Amino acid sequence: MSDAPSSSVDAVRAQLERDAEGAGYHLNPDTRFVRDLVDGLLTNRRRYGYLACPCRLATGIADEDRDIVCPCDYRDADLLDWGSCYCGLYVSDEVRRGQRALAPAPERRPAKALRTPPQLLGSSRRLEGTVPVWRCRVCGYLCGRERPPAVCPICKATADRFEPFR
Amino acid sequence: MSDAPSSSVDAVRAQLERDAEGAGYHLNPDTRFVRDLVDGLLTNRRRYGYLACPCRLATGIADEDRDIVCPCDYRDADLLDWGSCYCGLYVSDEVRRGQRALAPAPERRPAKALRTPPQLLGSSRRLEGTVPVWRCRVCGYLCGRERPPAVCPICKATADRFEPFR
Amino acid sequence: MSDAPSSSVDAVRAQLERDAEGAGYHLNPDTRFVRDLVDGLLTNRRRYGYLACPCRLATGIADEDRDIVCPCDYRDADLLDWGSCYCGLYVSDEVRRGQRALAPAPERRPAKALRTPPQLLGSSRRLEGTVPVWRCRVCGYLCGRERPPAVCPICKATADRFEPFR
Repeated sequence: MSDAPSSSVDAVRAQLERDAEGAGYHLNPDTRFVRDLVDGLLTNRRRYGYLACPCRLATGIADEDRDIVCPCDYRDADLLDWGSCYCGLYVSDEVRRGQRALAPAPERRPAKALRTPPQLLGSSRRLEGTVPVWRCRVCGYLCGRERPPAVCPICKATADRFEPFR
Repeated sequence: MSDAPSSSVDAVRAQLERDAEGAGYHLNPDTRFVRDLVDGLLTNRRRYGYLACPCRLATGIADEDRDIVCPCDYRDADLLDWGSCYCGLYVSDEVRRGQRALAPAPERRPAKALRTPPQLLGSSRRLEGTVPVWRCRVCGYLCGRERPPAVCPICKATADRFEPFR
Repeated sequence: MSDAPSSSVDAVRAQLERDAEGAGYHLNPDTRFVRDLVDGLLTNRRRYGYLACPCRLATGIADEDRDIVCPCDYRDADLLDWGSCYCGLYVSDEVRRGQRALAPAPERRPAKALRTPPQLLGSSRRLEGTVPVWRCRVCGYLCGRERPPAVCPICKATADRFEPFR
């Protein structure tokens, strides 16, 4: 059992929910489940100094764990493909509304040997031309992602209102 | 008279307002007027499956109606030019404050033969070089629009703080 | 002493705080200090018609004062370097949490002769290739700034989750 005081877990959960909803994301509606995950996040923060994913094994080396600091680099793709992130902390709108069952998302994180080495993350050459840019036709929001977000974080238009941009 | 329960209309209206205010947009301060429009939006959602503009004739073919799903592709330009969207659901800050009278916005949507065919919306070539990118000098927000937004959705700086970017 | 009614100062302060928090910024936790600055902002609005920085000398010529309308063009860089803006109205998360002392930020605004003339601000040539674009690896948010923001305004990921983009 964690030594995180309940108020802190609840405060962090509430902050995560505000941040999520403000940007068109959703926490899992199962509050008890979310509290356990937040408890794990806070345990990791005490242990490592950052909110490492509670469902993965962190190394404690910040550079190596950066992609699994919550929200992880894989959340958005998992939400689009599986309706939930690897942990089930974040879910898609369909899952939230009960129109799609919550199912486990497979691990999308590449094996260590296949990850981009931390020292290359700052290299602009690495990304040249690899990640497409999407434009919201309603408000003009631009983002660099493999696929458009489920909802525009600015105007809340749905993914089908995005178009490829340059 | 619509069969939308009042609570649903009010809930949707409140959500639209939160989304609008969070991004620097404003609903028409005439609450009764807005409720009627929201009622029309919900009627369209039941009829077509999406929130088609309540003031235009939808076809029921999602690909053909996409540009008039609320908020429509024309809202932002209408707000800048006329102080309100075609419906009057969204208004500019000046109209909201009563510094500018609410006046009907002319229909900006191109005639059907002049619209971009839905099958071309996914083509990146279509947009090459057509929509300029604007940058907020305060926070760096980038957006692809004909003109900068009235207010930066991130830091709330006004339109005159934007500059053309590349 | 200003003639701004207290309710107006408090209302503007509350609005600034909502805007700030929603985008990952923070007002100085010293409420009395912030109220004085807001009072100065409102005095400037009555005098000049815009919220000129209360800690700098405005000219009253909108084009020449644009970079010091609050939030000023220099806020974000000051927050990263000094933990607070020139006025101390906005502070970094570290300062807010008391993990870093509030210290005066030196004036970053260039001398008048070195500023970009207002008539060139609209020239896209001026910026060609000068300001880098950053991409949030979590949500894909793109921004044009010298350095990434302390927190992604969309998904609240920290600065170390940003990478150079093209």
